[in-house]
Amino acid sequence: MKFSFKNDYSEGCHPAILQSLLQHNLDQQTGYGEDEYSLQAKELIRKKINSQNSEIYFVSGGTQANLIVISSVLKPYQCAISASTGHILNNETGAIEATGHKILSIEKEDGKLTPADIIPVLESHGNIPHQVMPKMVYISNSTELGTIYTLKELKELSDFCKEKHLYLFMDGARMGHALTSEINDLTLENVAALTDIFYLGGTKNGALIGEAIVINNQDLQQDFAFNIKQKGALLAKGRLLGIQFLELMKNDLYFDLASYANQQAMKIKHAMEERGVRFLSETYTNQIFPILSNDLIQKLSEKFEFYVWKKIDENFSAIRLITSWSTGDEPVNDFIEIIKREL
Amino acid sequence: MKFSFKNDYSEGCHPAILQSLLQHNLDQQTGYGEDEYSLQAKELIRKKINSQNSEIYFVSGGTQANLIVISSVLKPYQCAISASTGHILNNETGAIEATGHKILSIEKEDGKLTPADIIPVLESHGNIPHQVMPKMVYISNSTELGTIYTLKELKELSDFCKEKHLYLFMDGARMGHALTSEINDLTLENVAALTDIFYLGGTKNGALIGEAIVINNQDLQQDFAFNIKQKGALLAKGRLLGIQFLELMKNDLYFDLASYANQQAMKIKHAMEERGVRFLSETYTNQIFPILSNDLIQKLSEKFEFYVWKKIDENFSAIRLITSWSTGDEPVNDFIEIIKREL
Amino acid sequence: MKFSFKNDYSEGCHPAILQSLLQHNLDQQTGYGEDEYSLQAKELIRKKINSQNSEIYFVSGGTQANLIVISSVLKPYQCAISASTGHILNNETGAIEATGHKILSIEKEDGKLTPADIIPVLESHGNIPHQVMPKMVYISNSTELGTIYTLKELKELSDFCKEKHLYLFMDGARMGHALTSEINDLTLENVAALTDIFYLGGTKNGALIGEAIVINNQDLQQDFAFNIKQKGALLAKGRLLGIQFLELMKNDLYFDLASYANQQAMKIKHAMEERGVRFLSETYTNQIFPILSNDLIQKLSEKFEFYVWKKIDENFSAIRLITSWSTGDEPVNDFIEIIKREL
Amino acid sequence: MKFSFKNDYSEGCHPAILQSLLQHNLDQQTGYGEDEYSLQAKELIRKKINSQNSEIYFVSGGTQANLIVISSVLKPYQCAISASTGHILNNETGAIEATGHKILSIEKEDGKLTPADIIPVLESHGNIPHQVMPKMVYISNSTELGTIYTLKELKELSDFCKEKHLYLFMDGARMGHALTSEINDLTLENVAALTDIFYLGGTKNGALIGEAIVINNQDLQQDFAFNIKQKGALLAKGRLLGIQFLELMKNDLYFDLASYANQQAMKIKHAMEERGVRFLSETYTNQIFPILSNDLIQKLSEKFEFYVWKKIDENFSAIRLITSWSTGDEPVNDFIEIIKREL
Repeated sequence: MKFSFKNDYSEGCHPAILQSLLQHNLDQQTGYGEDEYSLQAKELIRKKINSQNSEIYFVSGGTQANLIVISSVLKPYQCAISASTGHILNNETGAIEATGHKILSIEKEDGKLTPADIIPVLESHGNIPHQVMPKMVYISNSTELGTIYTLKELKELSDFCKEKHLYLFMDGARMGHALTSEINDLTLENVAALTDIFYLGGTKNGALIGEAIVINNQDLQQDFAFNIKQKGALLAKGRLLGIQFLELMKNDLYFDLASYANQQAMKIKHAMEERGVRFLSETYTNQIFPILSNDLIQKLSEKFEFYVWKKIDENFSAIRLITSWSTGDEPVNDFIEIIKREL
Repeated sequence: MKFSFKNDYSEGCHPAILQSLLQHNLDQQTGYGEDEYSLQAKELIRKKINSQNSEIYFVSGGTQANLIVISSVLKPYQCAISASTGHILNNETGAIEATGHKILSIEKEDGKLTPADIIPVLESHGNIPHQVMPKMVYISNSTELGTIYTLKELKELSDFCKEKHLYLFMDGARMGHALTSEINDLTLENVAALTDIFYLGGTKNGALIGEAIVINNQDLQQDFAFNIKQKGALLAKGRLLGIQFLELMKNDLYFDLASYANQQAMKIKHAMEERGVRFLSETYTNQIFPILSNDLIQKLSEKFEFYVWKKIDENFSAIRLITSWSTGDEPVNDFIEIIKREL
Repeated sequence: MKFSFKNDYSEGCHPAILQSLLQHNLDQQTGYGEDEYSLQAKELIRKKINSQNSEIYFVSGGTQANLIVISSVLKPYQCAISASTGHILNNETGAIEATGHKILSIEKEDGKLTPADIIPVLESHGNIPHQVMPKMVYISNSTELGTIYTLKELKELSDFCKEKHLYLFMDGARMGHALTSEINDLTLENVAALTDIFYLGGTKNGALIGEAIVINNQDLQQDFAFNIKQKGALLAKGRLLGIQFLELMKNDLYFDLASYANQQAMKIKHAMEERGVRFLSETYTNQIFPILSNDLIQKLSEKFEFYVWKKIDENFSAIRLITSWSTGDEPVNDFIEIIKREL
Repeated sequence: MKFSFKNDYSEGCHPAILQSLLQHNLDQQTGYGEDEYSLQAKELIRKKINSQNSEIYFVSGGTQANLIVISSVLKPYQCAISASTGHILNNETGAIEATGHKILSIEKEDGKLTPADIIPVLESHGNIPHQVMPKMVYISNSTELGTIYTLKELKELSDFCKEKHLYLFMDGARMGHALTSEINDLTLENVAALTDIFYLGGTKNGALIGEAIVINNQDLQQDFAFNIKQKGALLAKGRLLGIQFLELMKNDLYFDLASYANQQAMKIKHAMEERGVRFLSETYTNQIFPILSNDLIQKLSEKFEFYVWKKIDENFSAIRLITSWSTGDEPVNDFIEIIKREL
């Protein structure tokens, strides 16, 4: 069996979660998210974000979180704005449009949006009522390219959105990895203070399933549960989501797992940098995009699985490597060894 | 703590499932339902239904299964027909209409549809193109009232649907309970042969989450996976669904669990019948609807949780009791004891 | 050629409209409803309803008006309530559901809703968040059965809706006929004061196309034009709608035409009543539903077109007769003559 | 009053249409498009396109035609491909997305699509089922920039679409102008043979309202009328659409009007070319985009209305001038006179 660096959801979940599922298995609980684990997990999150008035809902996955949030927040004629690399634009089978909403795309190499990127979009959408009304800015942190927002960048974007009456929504499928990156200066409390709504991804950080949607803007909280039910996302056994987030939030397991994943990626990155490898984008999270010769890629693929991300020229391509909370030292060292031997 | 007879999803899952999750936890698997557990579970289901050409997809819950199936199968101007008790009509927050489709409701006391029920609906929808086009018949087995379809009834309905070019879709959230009822004469193989599409419910029969959608009509199979992804139902760690159905299908655990739940309900039912209690509907599955005096209901509610379903008159109401794969003998016996003592 | 009593849209439009179209044909005007005729027509309507803060939009037809209003006003999880005879329930090919909204149906013989009808619907929709949230009451005046609301009835319904936080929406496809009925005591000013939103139908009262949507509740006015454009209802040459409503509103032509249509229907009704004919519903507008022997229906159908509405027994059926602003005396007298001769 | 070159829908309609409306005003006709004028107009169109098996439906406007066609043809997970200048992308308030469908945009300076443009889009959408499935190519002729397709270009695109199982849909809001351009070599018969579905625009070529949707691919014809009704586009008095297309199609009035509009635009264009004016795009239809000094634009705007389309540099901008079937010689000559005087 080859070891896979294809993604961060190839394994099951952190053992603490399975232990807790075992321990509480036969306890009777109220359904649909009213179980005591969910209530406790929400309370823990509220403490960590230091925002008692935020409302929290757990759903199964990222596409589900995105489509519920966007269709709940926007009126029929309003649209979202996203970097061209946005997950909602490229890899959700038109899930957002299926709820009736357009997404305006902004070309960005690094996957991050700034006020300067958004201004022209607003300016070119003033032909009322013949054009959709931009009303939400969708960002990911870390982005689909592994890059992250600094506190200063997020603050500027947040201020801009408030000024322009745009909602700011952060897709946090890999929030843990962003916030534990070695170059990060954002806290979860900052995120809660600077966004209208965001979610904390569990699926890609040690849970079996689960994203925690956090609604900070109180205007967006009313009746949110109806949307979750209507989109088929309200689990009868909400305990499954509650227990997972309870375990992940206790003792900061969530951040420890993400930090570990980042470190494993950085080990590979540093080994490559020592040998002069260039990267498609400069990342400090659990995704790296080294540019390698096709020969070397061929050799690596005999022992590892990963995506060839982008052709650079006739002889070189960028590959994508992703590490997870469960990526052991052995595959990392094996991989590095080949790099050192071949370069 | 009171023991709850409110539903069949108050506990976690069958221990065999947790054991399997533990055992395979660190195995790397392909995501999005292409894991080996999912593939094996699908193969097992195909064998049990004796239909190698059926396609199978796992999703998280019943509302999700219903909305994906109906929106995938129907064209925009087509609608579903359901008994007035149908889950899609009453308890899914308009999830089907949210995908653009009307549901035509037929009043039925027992929650079951027959050709005679459907004919007038077809006859009153012939004003082309001013009315929706009926194109699917939605039934539940067991129904929301605990009743079940006989082979003869299902055969007649299936023949009728074929003749009228209607798709027949069976919501099997409690399929296990229907097929193991003491009065049942249907097999899973019959169900596959007589419906265009159906699902096997896991959530209410020992799984943490999970319904297995089985598409028998090959015209409805094409590109189905796109719909699952677009509706946010494609789990990155599809292994969670695969492992559960693999355990449930191995050695017929699925049917054993349902049969057990039915038996626990029947014990209570028989004890009540002996004391002359009447029932709102005649059921042989894990749901019973006894009509009791408000005094007795009050006494029972001091030790048990359950829904008061319907007011009968000033002094009597029907309650709903549901048993599950994990309902022990102790609460059942305690409940029966009160009945015997008070009646 | 047989004369048709099938509906009130068999002919073109009132000649004054064509004259005005001719007169202004080559004037250049701003598009999309900003032409001067539309602006003047809106001003005239605001005066007639005595509500300077109401906003007015013209669209082409009734189904279009209904789907735009309902989808604009309701949030995704909210639904409308309608009498079972409602046009939106039966004759719009699921247009409302296609925008994502369920309609709850209340069985009513006379097509009219009262608070007492609505209370049980509200009571049975309290299982939050598992059920749609009722948020709008849809009524028609005159109804699809030709009946009308009295001031007292509308006042009670309006008060009830305010108390229950429900929007009240009146479909006025045949508003002119309602307000000029001999038993009517409502004014257009009353309608504006007692509803959140309504529309004045032109298509069935002398226009080629056109309904005037009047939004009285200021909470529902914001950005309404976007919805009209998004649903494909914003005519480039909005002048066509403006000119028609300008002509209809000038000198109360709108009411004169409807009153005339009502009188023609009443002539036939009275002639039938004199001969002892019974009616399916008691109407005083331009729709009547006499119950006649199949033999007589056969005879009438040799000279006239009309719908056979409902079978009463083996020998009798109800037919529907509709008169319009252009129904001349000759066909009315011919029809009456046959009645007198045969009964 | 300034004369407006802003668009081709500032006036009413060709007088022949009003005469026909007057002449037939009181004839009773069947509603909903079954009137004799609509039937005759459809027959005339079928003859002109030499395609007896094409089905034809009349609707009010372009956005309506686009949203009905696209939502009828595509399955929920399928999307359309459009040039970045496409009307459906920019000026329809998200009407297509509101029906659930994404549009993939291709940057094109001239507004026209070729197989070479489309291939990379297909190649980057192969991640099944995580991405929308491209299934329709949407083109406009003439385009939103006034450019047109040659027979060779359309043939290549049509062949490519067939090979790739893509539907080809032509938005013909200005089809008349395209087919009567001095450089055109396409016939309406070619268009019918090479597209799956297209429409003939009336609104911008002498009608009050109206576009004729022509469905050539028989797979797309079934039940189409349901979609028209469901979207609120089925006019009760379909005669209004029928009479207009009957007049436009008789004696080729449709083409004469468009040809005239083109000629008026070309007069201005040639006068400008003589004075060395450059153009944003090279057009031979009724839209021209000359690049003028801001001073000259200022002078022209004292006597004429038109859109300033695009800033070129500090001193120059492109403006858009549109002529119509009713643009007289006087404003054209006045405009040319200023050009000659000032340049």
